[in-house]
Amino acid sequence: MKKLLLASTSTVHGSPYLAYLMPRLKSFFSGCNTLLFIPYARPGGMSHQAYTEKVKETFKALNITVAGIHEYESPAEAIASAEAIFTGGGNTFVLLNNLYKNNCINALKTAINGGTPYLGTSAGSNICGLTINTTNDMPIVYPPSFKALGCLPFNVNPHYLDPEPNSTHMGETRETRIKEFHTYHTFPVVGLREGSWLELNNHILQLKGAFSARIFEYNKQPYELNPEETLQHLN
Amino acid sequence: MKKLLLASTSTVHGSPYLAYLMPRLKSFFSGCNTLLFIPYARPGGMSHQAYTEKVKETFKALNITVAGIHEYESPAEAIASAEAIFTGGGNTFVLLNNLYKNNCINALKTAINGGTPYLGTSAGSNICGLTINTTNDMPIVYPPSFKALGCLPFNVNPHYLDPEPNSTHMGETRETRIKEFHTYHTFPVVGLREGSWLELNNHILQLKGAFSARIFEYNKQPYELNPEETLQHLN
Repeated sequence: MKKLLLASTSTVHGSPYLAYLMPRLKSFFSGCNTLLFIPYARPGGMSHQAYTEKVKETFKALNITVAGIHEYESPAEAIASAEAIFTGGGNTFVLLNNLYKNNCINALKTAINGGTPYLGTSAGSNICGLTINTTNDMPIVYPPSFKALGCLPFNVNPHYLDPEPNSTHMGETRETRIKEFHTYHTFPVVGLREGSWLELNNHILQLKGAFSARIFEYNKQPYELNPEETLQHLN
Repeated sequence: MKKLLLASTSTVHGSPYLAYLMPRLKSFFSGCNTLLFIPYARPGGMSHQAYTEKVKETFKALNITVAGIHEYESPAEAIASAEAIFTGGGNTFVLLNNLYKNNCINALKTAINGGTPYLGTSAGSNICGLTINTTNDMPIVYPPSFKALGCLPFNVNPHYLDPEPNSTHMGETRETRIKEFHTYHTFPVVGLREGSWLELNNHILQLKGAFSARIFEYNKQPYELNPEETLQHLN
């Protein structure tokens, strides 16, 4: 029975790392004493070790001991034997590329399908969709495929942004980009605003957090889904 | 002798399609009676034919007759025999994918190296760099490679945006993204603001237009390059 908590962002403006999620994480990870952290999305600026240290520090408050996947000889085995998993944010192309390179894709699917609780933020949430075709990130590396874990029957667009009515910038809005995605693909996209997350528990997939989400279904007008509403209809 | 005009955007806010470039295009295309338009970047919303009609209409003012590449049986031959070429904007992944699929990559390189005047806007400029690793676009299709035409010894970042000091959004700034690109690649990136363009003429590559460009060299502090300055040092 899959258990997922997929957040738009790790950090909301003006508050510490993961702070807005901590009350929720306490119950989500209840019974877990250890957690495997996957820092693979980090595109530089901070080492995998430094990124992991930050997470270790944060999870002390939950009495959970954190180890970084890069500390293990076999990343796939580390995933298979993990009590709980957290994949942090960064660059989605870098993350997916590292997962392919380190043979983690099938291991992650198996662990998640087997019920290992999985927390993702930003890029770590993005890879739970069908593909990474709806990431906002810069394609700084070329992964062997855009195919992702497919733990959800749709794609996620983290850090979802509404069009700015007074913008003079000529780049596409997020909504336009996702509509263009639908000229090539038919599966839905969930635009998750910062401060919102998806939670899958006991077969129920729900939107949680402070904001509604924007849902893009193929050949339909985009619409809002409110917190606590389920996403079971997106298949 | 290569002749390139590579603009950040086709359209600046509040003015018609290509209007700010028209005075410059008159001399850039002087002597040309016909132009081949490549509408391949268009990710939907408008057909290749409709996109081409818009360009046809615009180029009437320069007495230049426009044909769309999709009107030809062999796109590569259309490129080889073109008097001048214009690749319009849209989605860079869609554009590059279509160029690979239609065997246009080598034809375009050969034409440009042979001196066929080439105009690019947005995605059409992006593909003249070494790779598309610095596009801002959503990766809605998976091209066979991120390798682009390499007509310039660096990458282009069109629609370059400065960080917004008051933003509460937690997504990366453009500057951060390009710095992260440099953890994987060593070639320079030219951040072209909307209203600016690059011009290569008589072996001289210059910044033109209303704004300075932001230059990102590997292991260097980013810096501004002013209009009329050359980019010969970026090798």
